[in-house]
Amino acid sequence: MSSDAPAPTAAILIIGNEILSGRTQDSNLNWIAGRLTAKGIRLGEARVVPDIESEIVAAVQALSARYTYVFTTGGIGPTHDDITAEAMAKAFGRALVIDPEAAARLEQHYGEGQVTPTRLRMARVPEGARLINNPVSAAPGFRMENVFVMAGVPAIMRAMVDGIVPSLAGGPVVLTRAIACQIAESVLAEPLSAIQALYPDVDIGSYPWFRAGQFGVSLVARGTDAGVLDAVAQEIYRMVRMLGGEPVIEDPA
Amino acid sequence: MSSDAPAPTAAILIIGNEILSGRTQDSNLNWIAGRLTAKGIRLGEARVVPDIESEIVAAVQALSARYTYVFTTGGIGPTHDDITAEAMAKAFGRALVIDPEAAARLEQHYGEGQVTPTRLRMARVPEGARLINNPVSAAPGFRMENVFVMAGVPAIMRAMVDGIVPSLAGGPVVLTRAIACQIAESVLAEPLSAIQALYPDVDIGSYPWFRAGQFGVSLVARGTDAGVLDAVAQEIYRMVRMLGGEPVIEDPA
Repeated sequence: MSSDAPAPTAAILIIGNEILSGRTQDSNLNWIAGRLTAKGIRLGEARVVPDIESEIVAAVQALSARYTYVFTTGGIGPTHDDITAEAMAKAFGRALVIDPEAAARLEQHYGEGQVTPTRLRMARVPEGARLINNPVSAAPGFRMENVFVMAGVPAIMRAMVDGIVPSLAGGPVVLTRAIACQIAESVLAEPLSAIQALYPDVDIGSYPWFRAGQFGVSLVARGTDAGVLDAVAQEIYRMVRMLGGEPVIEDPA
Repeated sequence: MSSDAPAPTAAILIIGNEILSGRTQDSNLNWIAGRLTAKGIRLGEARVVPDIESEIVAAVQALSARYTYVFTTGGIGPTHDDITAEAMAKAFGRALVIDPEAAARLEQHYGEGQVTPTRLRMARVPEGARLINNPVSAAPGFRMENVFVMAGVPAIMRAMVDGIVPSLAGGPVVLTRAIACQIAESVLAEPLSAIQALYPDVDIGSYPWFRAGQFGVSLVARGTDAGVLDAVAQEIYRMVRMLGGEPVIEDPA
């Protein structure tokens, strides 16, 4: 990809009542976000929707039309509440079919004659979909147009993403510099804003935190030019010093 | 609220580049979800959007029109990247004004004459908004129509939610029963589906997990009638036993 081409974008669609009920703390979004950032793909939005077909269809249509790639997690198992494959078929106006290669992988995993009708549910894909490998438990995900449909179990989802991302077109990688200090945001806001104004190609964020009874703030600069970022980080460092603070260089990850 | 009235619904809108870049693992969604579930408010959707005004405006308009309540987190501090108050004013076609009560609270917190123009940014609200108390660091959130605009720092957000939720109309509380086992989903899917068919008012979910090299699944029944839920839990327990498994009753939370 030429450096003038716009960076590819992505959205994440998390499918699952268990996230919305508060039962389960999602960790997939954060992990996928890290992988996409490292590849130079900009994550533009994430959504969490329940296990309701019309909700999944509406969300995937909206996101698929808007972003280069969409990654979904959850709802591709064999139980009655796994409705993602049907929803994707509806979203793209395709028939839901048994993929012969998926069925073969299930037979290899479970043994000859052991692919019950319930297990065969995991071989259903929208017509024309391409399989996503599942090195953990065989049952594949699938790609339909620009949408990657993956398992919700983190270990399986991660293996799937690690199989997918190297094959995608990336863009310029967004790098990060981060400096923490314990100066109030209301004190550093003005000089920080002046630094931001000097470097319009860098995105400077101010993220307050509060732990163990103390307030602090992480000042994070993000951009694609390492030299410019280093200059911004130096400016922020000097600013913190000038305000009487103790700048602490943070892990940029 | 009468038991025949539909349960109130909610959406969560998380505003912040740091979540989408993978730098920060969000924990606000899960915490708010738990509070809403306990109050009988159904969380129907969650979205994460970047610090881009048009994105915030579009998301809050879509969610506000569709759900009883919307809870937003992030972007109400004093720095240049805190643009949530302006975005809310635009979303609702209101002027952005300095709220006198908010300004007074800031003065009480920072001291007389210490409310700099930067600090006064934290008193800006859409015209007609009502303040949300911030017992941690004074700078208030605000309610605009059915949207509660809150801080992103978890300690502050939690204090705000704990001030808001008791005053909201709740609905019938959704209760949970959960049983874990190590039977493959592909084996239990059919009998589980039969139990689901017997109890259409209960929502039965099957959530596989994989840890320390072992697969397992949590079978979770959710509904508003404790007696019916107990019956469903017993059926699931018996089903696991009949399939040769070892049912483990899990913390329902």
